[in-house]
Amino acid sequence: MNRRFTLMRRPVGLPAPGDFRLESAPHPPLSTGEFQICNHYASLDPAIRGWLDDTPSYMPPIALGDAVRATTVGVVEASNTPDFAVGDWVVGLNAIETHSIGSAGSFTAKIDAAAVPSVTNYLSVFGAVGMTAYFGLLDLGKPKAGDTVLVSGAAGAVGSLAGQIAKIKDCTVIGVAGSAAKCARLIRDYGFDHAVNYSGKTPAQLADCLAALAPDGIDVVFENVGGDCLDAALSNLANGARVVLCGLIAEYNVPAPIGARNLWQLIVKSASIHGLLVRDYVPRFAEGGLQMGEWLAAGRLRCDEHIEHGIENAYPAFMRLFDGSNSGKLILKLV
Amino acid sequence: MNRRFTLMRRPVGLPAPGDFRLESAPHPPLSTGEFQICNHYASLDPAIRGWLDDTPSYMPPIALGDAVRATTVGVVEASNTPDFAVGDWVVGLNAIETHSIGSAGSFTAKIDAAAVPSVTNYLSVFGAVGMTAYFGLLDLGKPKAGDTVLVSGAAGAVGSLAGQIAKIKDCTVIGVAGSAAKCARLIRDYGFDHAVNYSGKTPAQLADCLAALAPDGIDVVFENVGGDCLDAALSNLANGARVVLCGLIAEYNVPAPIGARNLWQLIVKSASIHGLLVRDYVPRFAEGGLQMGEWLAAGRLRCDEHIEHGIENAYPAFMRLFDGSNSGKLILKLV
Repeated sequence: MNRRFTLMRRPVGLPAPGDFRLESAPHPPLSTGEFQICNHYASLDPAIRGWLDDTPSYMPPIALGDAVRATTVGVVEASNTPDFAVGDWVVGLNAIETHSIGSAGSFTAKIDAAAVPSVTNYLSVFGAVGMTAYFGLLDLGKPKAGDTVLVSGAAGAVGSLAGQIAKIKDCTVIGVAGSAAKCARLIRDYGFDHAVNYSGKTPAQLADCLAALAPDGIDVVFENVGGDCLDAALSNLANGARVVLCGLIAEYNVPAPIGARNLWQLIVKSASIHGLLVRDYVPRFAEGGLQMGEWLAAGRLRCDEHIEHGIENAYPAFMRLFDGSNSGKLILKLV
Repeated sequence: MNRRFTLMRRPVGLPAPGDFRLESAPHPPLSTGEFQICNHYASLDPAIRGWLDDTPSYMPPIALGDAVRATTVGVVEASNTPDFAVGDWVVGLNAIETHSIGSAGSFTAKIDAAAVPSVTNYLSVFGAVGMTAYFGLLDLGKPKAGDTVLVSGAAGAVGSLAGQIAKIKDCTVIGVAGSAAKCARLIRDYGFDHAVNYSGKTPAQLADCLAALAPDGIDVVFENVGGDCLDAALSNLANGARVVLCGLIAEYNVPAPIGARNLWQLIVKSASIHGLLVRDYVPRFAEGGLQMGEWLAAGRLRCDEHIEHGIENAYPAFMRLFDGSNSGKLILKLV
């Protein structure tokens, strides 16, 4: 039987337990060209929250009654195609379910489980998370040695990698996070130069903090949060600053978008904002993975994974993304 | 005597007549290296509204009691420097006053009055307005032949030029303006392909209009307005779209900034916003002026000027920028 974490109702604001249901269904028969994957791990990402809404985006919304879309790592256990053999490890855009059906047209790729410390690394440092940090920071942020780089959501999976890559590129790195414990980890575990706890701060206090830490302005902003964080960053830009817009988690569960209010500062500082969709970089993932692997092997990069267990815990595990209680890349072990 | 249009009080919202005063003062004596300019024309620009506020910007605010900063065109009538001779025509960042004092450190340049149909062209097509349209559209917007280009504030001085340059570059051009008469001029006088009158439309109606005119999305947005106009544009971007942020006139007279609410669309469409400050392009003004001159001579570009008369009319003339009652580059004839 396939156990599936299914979307039953579109969330209004913060997702509620009743928006989902855990279902069991028999495996459908395999058609020619298809293969069956036993999903070992599912990646829990903020992007999933967007796919729950029925609004125009870069992908269609998850249909009501469908299993919640997610990237998974698993093993092929039956195959009707010569391209995938039983026993192959694969990563692909599937769903939070124990078994998925892949086909030539699905986003599934074989992976080498023996080449990495843990197969879950294909959901973190070598997956979309790592590639988002790598290409977002370097291709869109274009940091130069000596630049000041600000990362919001800095203790998150993408943020912690983006900040470390900025350090490798000889930048001064400021992280913004939501608790004192996270700020301590930014300095201790990820080598950030400064950490700012936004919790309990007014927007003006947050902006003042950044002004004190970056008196010559911020050259690169790697933005995962939006709202007050983004406005505080915008009010402290250096001339020609680049803002990499990776995510807006502050507004995923609110009824109306917040956006950026200090947009005028883009004109004042001849600055720019660049939307980041990691899908654009799929053709260059091998390049990014190679570099991330070198840094990892050299001990210059640290990637933490936070693994929750059991598909029956899919809802509370997913919600950790929004209460900030995960530390490291959030992954759900399914079987 | 020098007649000066002076800032007495910082406006709250829309500038009021009492925020300014028309004063007369004797000419100060000329020091070594200085020269006296008789200002014939002052350029009335939306940027002046920003300089009236005491907020961080790319230039210090106009001090209370000082004449209102503006670019002027005038004639040198006394000189204590070999660099400027009596009778020279000059353009420079001076003030709305009949006489200004220039020096080596001031932004003043000699101009060739005989080379242009009207000396006021140095405040329009060959001035900051023309260079803003030219470099903003081409350098930041990077339009390709066949692209769809949206211009807001399209009947304004910068917008009408930006749209015409986009047509020269073989783009499909949509203009957004605030009245049916302006929309008619966009099509008739400036050769735009489509014109949308935002007046009386809800944000959703405006977005729907743009969707109907640009079913494949907008590749380049030349934004002069902000607010609902910008949000409607953001909700209709093509993949990889570039938004040139030239101005935000919708929010210059409101108590709190509006900003952009549909920022999420930058991620969805891998799009970018670029703040435009024409000052960055001063070293390339000769290049821009040469090209604009060629297009003008070839009849491919039309630049309208709206000239108001008399420094005593500085306030009502300036306010035309905000009630939309100017048609073409707004200029005040001073003497």
